[in-house]
Amino acid sequence: MRYNQQWLGASITDGSYSDFFTVTVPGDIQKDYAEFMSWGDVNYMDNCIKYNDIEDLFWSYKTNVVYEAKKGERVYFVTEGIEYEYDVKLNGKLLLHHEGMFSKVETDITDELKNGSDLEIIIYPHPKREGAAECRDQADQSCKPAVGYGWDWHPRLLVSGLWNETYIETRSDNHINDVEVKYTLNKDLTAADVHFEIDCKADCEITVSDMDGNTLYKGANTDIHMESIRLWWCNGQGTPYLYNWTVKSADCEKSGRMGFKKVRLVMNDKAWDVPFFPKSRANAPITVELNGRRIFAKGSNWVNPDIFTGTITDETYRTQVKYAKEANMNILRCWGGANVNKEAFFDACDEYGIMVWQEFPLSCNNYKGTPEYLSVLEPEARAIIKRVRRHACHVIWCGGNELFNSWSGMTDQSHALRLLDKICYEEDFAKPYIMTAPLNGMGHGYYQFYDTDTDKTVFEIYRNSHKSAYSEFGNPSIASMEQLRRIFDEETLNNPSPAVDSPWYLHHGFKAWHENSWCCFNILEKYFGKQNTIEEYVEKSNILQCEGYKCIFEEARRQKPECSMAMNWDYNEPWRTAAGNNLIEYPMTKKPSYYAVQSALRDVMPSARAEHFTFKPGDVFNAELWLLNDSTKAVEDTVEVYFTVDGVKKHIMTWNTGLGEANTNIRGHRIAVDIPDSPTQLMTLTLEAKCGTSKYRFLLSNDIPEGEVFIPTLNN
Amino acid sequence: MRYNQQWLGASITDGSYSDFFTVTVPGDIQKDYAEFMSWGDVNYMDNCIKYNDIEDLFWSYKTNVVYEAKKGERVYFVTEGIEYEYDVKLNGKLLLHHEGMFSKVETDITDELKNGSDLEIIIYPHPKREGAAECRDQADQSCKPAVGYGWDWHPRLLVSGLWNETYIETRSDNHINDVEVKYTLNKDLTAADVHFEIDCKADCEITVSDMDGNTLYKGANTDIHMESIRLWWCNGQGTPYLYNWTVKSADCEKSGRMGFKKVRLVMNDKAWDVPFFPKSRANAPITVELNGRRIFAKGSNWVNPDIFTGTITDETYRTQVKYAKEANMNILRCWGGANVNKEAFFDACDEYGIMVWQEFPLSCNNYKGTPEYLSVLEPEARAIIKRVRRHACHVIWCGGNELFNSWSGMTDQSHALRLLDKICYEEDFAKPYIMTAPLNGMGHGYYQFYDTDTDKTVFEIYRNSHKSAYSEFGNPSIASMEQLRRIFDEETLNNPSPAVDSPWYLHHGFKAWHENSWCCFNILEKYFGKQNTIEEYVEKSNILQCEGYKCIFEEARRQKPECSMAMNWDYNEPWRTAAGNNLIEYPMTKKPSYYAVQSALRDVMPSARAEHFTFKPGDVFNAELWLLNDSTKAVEDTVEVYFTVDGVKKHIMTWNTGLGEANTNIRGHRIAVDIPDSPTQLMTLTLEAKCGTSKYRFLLSNDIPEGEVFIPTLNN
Repeated sequence: MRYNQQWLGASITDGSYSDFFTVTVPGDIQKDYAEFMSWGDVNYMDNCIKYNDIEDLFWSYKTNVVYEAKKGERVYFVTEGIEYEYDVKLNGKLLLHHEGMFSKVETDITDELKNGSDLEIIIYPHPKREGAAECRDQADQSCKPAVGYGWDWHPRLLVSGLWNETYIETRSDNHINDVEVKYTLNKDLTAADVHFEIDCKADCEITVSDMDGNTLYKGANTDIHMESIRLWWCNGQGTPYLYNWTVKSADCEKSGRMGFKKVRLVMNDKAWDVPFFPKSRANAPITVELNGRRIFAKGSNWVNPDIFTGTITDETYRTQVKYAKEANMNILRCWGGANVNKEAFFDACDEYGIMVWQEFPLSCNNYKGTPEYLSVLEPEARAIIKRVRRHACHVIWCGGNELFNSWSGMTDQSHALRLLDKICYEEDFAKPYIMTAPLNGMGHGYYQFYDTDTDKTVFEIYRNSHKSAYSEFGNPSIASMEQLRRIFDEETLNNPSPAVDSPWYLHHGFKAWHENSWCCFNILEKYFGKQNTIEEYVEKSNILQCEGYKCIFEEARRQKPECSMAMNWDYNEPWRTAAGNNLIEYPMTKKPSYYAVQSALRDVMPSARAEHFTFKPGDVFNAELWLLNDSTKAVEDTVEVYFTVDGVKKHIMTWNTGLGEANTNIRGHRIAVDIPDSPTQLMTLTLEAKCGTSKYRFLLSNDIPEGEVFIPTLNN
Repeated sequence: MRYNQQWLGASITDGSYSDFFTVTVPGDIQKDYAEFMSWGDVNYMDNCIKYNDIEDLFWSYKTNVVYEAKKGERVYFVTEGIEYEYDVKLNGKLLLHHEGMFSKVETDITDELKNGSDLEIIIYPHPKREGAAECRDQADQSCKPAVGYGWDWHPRLLVSGLWNETYIETRSDNHINDVEVKYTLNKDLTAADVHFEIDCKADCEITVSDMDGNTLYKGANTDIHMESIRLWWCNGQGTPYLYNWTVKSADCEKSGRMGFKKVRLVMNDKAWDVPFFPKSRANAPITVELNGRRIFAKGSNWVNPDIFTGTITDETYRTQVKYAKEANMNILRCWGGANVNKEAFFDACDEYGIMVWQEFPLSCNNYKGTPEYLSVLEPEARAIIKRVRRHACHVIWCGGNELFNSWSGMTDQSHALRLLDKICYEEDFAKPYIMTAPLNGMGHGYYQFYDTDTDKTVFEIYRNSHKSAYSEFGNPSIASMEQLRRIFDEETLNNPSPAVDSPWYLHHGFKAWHENSWCCFNILEKYFGKQNTIEEYVEKSNILQCEGYKCIFEEARRQKPECSMAMNWDYNEPWRTAAGNNLIEYPMTKKPSYYAVQSALRDVMPSARAEHFTFKPGDVFNAELWLLNDSTKAVEDTVEVYFTVDGVKKHIMTWNTGLGEANTNIRGHRIAVDIPDSPTQLMTLTLEAKCGTSKYRFLLSNDIPEGEVFIPTLNN
């Protein structure tokens, strides 16, 4: 039996405690402290910087242990995760010291409880590697997610505390400590040998039922053979079929779900071609093969949906994952800079058919393989694997983010990444492991609509790129007016400032990635000229984000099967940002780009490969027509092509696609439309097909200036 | 005490034994059988094909065990390697069954010896994966070296038997079963904590002495701290310093040598640069850093120096390694298709300062990670590591040859390569492990002087290539006349034939890699026209091999530090080949190319980057001058440049190089020489410097025809 406790918290400075305050468990003590101190909404103005002063404090969680133990039962202190280094004390006596926030820790406190019930958890200050600059570098010798040390969409704001379930548990000999269901599929994936690994001293009864509740097995065998199984499929490819199981002892019960699947990373089409001598190696395999079927993996990069990771609710996880499914995504990349999500996230992904690419907590740093670091990484990684591998949704292990790039400095020889390969081999043999992304053949970036260095938009960049996977690409917009009004006071709102410590800067409006990101006023003025209000900039930035994301996602899909993956950076964000690449605005609002991506990811859809975004009078607008098909069905369609300029919608062409095979795109004609002499305006290309309509906006402009304007001066 | 036995051998067909014949242990039973059958020299004409008929036989080794055991001693059967699958029987009773030729196997036979002394080892037929084509594919589910299944420089000829030391050993309680010396260096590599891991029940005395025989330690401590140590350096960088150790018990003694070094693979210069968006990963690190110093690794690809690997003598290993040192090499890549060499090879490399890149027995196949294969690979790989890691010379572990290329089909996800990474991590933590070569950034090939497809010679190919490492490149010549006369009878010698099963074909003169390799008569005729005798073709082919190898090795060195490695394919060969890329002709003759490579690998030398090999009258001969310096010293030199054409040696330029740093090349001027109108002839560029002279031959030709002639018709 579990007993949640009523905890109080306090900060500890030089050994002396502050007043105790109410805390939420699971949660983050910095949030509790901020509430206690009435610091106000962390998302407002420059409130986030208040947290800098409390980075190096110790914290105390205290409770008087409450429980009821029956005769013969033992009492345990259990935590499924405390961030990041801590002591557990009972009646002033040290029960354990631990470093690492992903390992489940449990300890028998029955005997010590005879002496009293004062339980205290001391949280150590956030790890900071000695000598490191005050940024993510400080995280490069710990397993704490690096994001809190500051990122271009996350403030410098470090959290810690009882972030995951932490409780007292009474256990009889019938206690079921853990159940893990493992299985082996036969060759043609029609039958499974299922094994229940039950950590319980007593005999248990096992029940297995299908999705409709029909009992398929009831009995005491821990090894079950199941025939005519249904497989777990990702969104768009079939039902994410899950079976229910229950394991019962005399006074304990655990239940869960299991999904059957086989997943591999296989070579992309043409990836074996290495043209010239001296010959190098082929590209790394990155095509997800699910249940023997090659999948075009389409989705997004998931980050922590709240700065205060301990407070994220099941409902938040569930809703955001549901939105991903509704956006026609089939994969989320859980990026290594962030926390590993709680169970509710994976449960939702299991249910909605969202494949999960899970990274270990390494990102954009050189995590040197010192004995100290490796000794923490090993148990932490094993704990992550043992938890996540159980989920049907999980498909890929990855060492971490962009580790083989200059800004990180790790290599194939890095012991941390070799250790992770070894642990994955040992703990989750059948699953793919990649050391990092990107690998050779894959690409990350660009992260703006327009690149001032090369004078190229995403239209030119991606049309001329030939990557096996686009596992990150960004394209920002300014936040909605509603969001901006929640972040800024009126005066700040109307006076965007790149000054360091200004709220616009703190909320990533300026200098986040490049000088002008993420607001990118320079790019907006280049295309649309000077605007009169912030609202107009917001509107224009959403046009670029929507058209840019559609361009990239659809281009990646057109490059199938040489390309097998597209995931934009990023899906969600952990706080109210003034601008960003995300599709979901904090906490849970769909941006216009969400709908644009939803459109670009439809399994079957007409698509146009346009050469550019902007055209001058007299230009010829060229676009290649495609019918994209990621579905399991052969398709045939008729596409009516219209072009709208000067308010006139003209029929350009009727394209009968002919019959195309399942999971195979059809390439069509190349249309040519003369651009009239007309003032600057948006033009629209419309593709109407039985499977649905696709619309694209382009810019007709007599003059695109080389706008490098940094701070917009509003004319109001 | 060891007791070598007198063995007899027999073949077993359908359970019935042939007559017994004399066998050599260590050795290969096929060689013994061939001698017994008087098959003649395997190197002569088509004798090699006789071995095809005995591939699927079982073999028996028999002996009456001879030994003397003192009271209390136990008697062991010990083998350090039997190829490949075998039973060991004593008095008809099965003692053990084993698959794998690298694991040391030992078993206590004391009790069974009371019943008699009839020891028999049954060798199983060579492993052949069911359904595989009759080539190396048959080896893709075993740990037997693939080369015997046929390669483009090795006949189809499979060997097996007691290839490594196999004996009876009597052991008292004082028996020292094994000693491994491990060490940890301090940060600045000046002191070592040395640990003697001694497998012996009794106490032992340890002695450590330096290279001059001075005793540094004598006592019983298994942990010794050594100050002011001297490091082991590779050839050209310092002394390959080795310390001697002896471990003694009351009646047993083992001794060996140890060398202190630290080795890493670090990023090549500029390897972090990944220019375009979307950005991929940086190249894999391949610069050998020895004792904190970046080394340009220069050497060759080592293959088994005899088809009959069991018969290779210590002297053969020692002499060939000595030749490598004398050729100014500092590394040998022990290629994964061949056997792992015996101890004498590594001992010689320790002593001569030749670094060893050791591959596991995987080459050019897709070794699928079936449970059966992995269960053999794991103990075999551990056995290889435990043996080789002890040697100062060993610097790199590699999964195998060209596994990430289309002709192999393995990927980063292949379980065999992940398992090897894991085992290397566990057994030899500090050493680099790469899954295969080439990795991204590295290059293999080309393997002819001239590529008919692209109309480029090695001069154009490598000058325009920018690889981090050239870990394989070939450039063949026809064998010496002496060698050809040993292979062919007179008629065959003068009638080269590409017909399958002709001796020229069997000895790799034709269709080895491409249609015309390795004789490449087409290329010889392209440059030198029709020749009158085989001797003239041999002479011309040696010109191309020598000039080609100098071109490639020196070009790789000029590309330092972006490039950090150059190793030609191949150093030696296992039998008399009619033509090949090797530098050492079987069994032990230096080819002209040996001396050319020796010249090109001098630590300090003048070098010329010429644009082409052939020039027409009226052309301008351009060459960039360099002073190459791999040495540990700053250099300064004066280079006198001469050009010889029409028998006239003209002084072209005097280049004062100025002072260049240690381990850094100096780039010089670009010379321009007008090519006169003159008949076809060789021209010579001579660079005379204080550090030595470099000479290059070029071809002046009025007409280079597109020669595709396949079979030369001699005019005699």
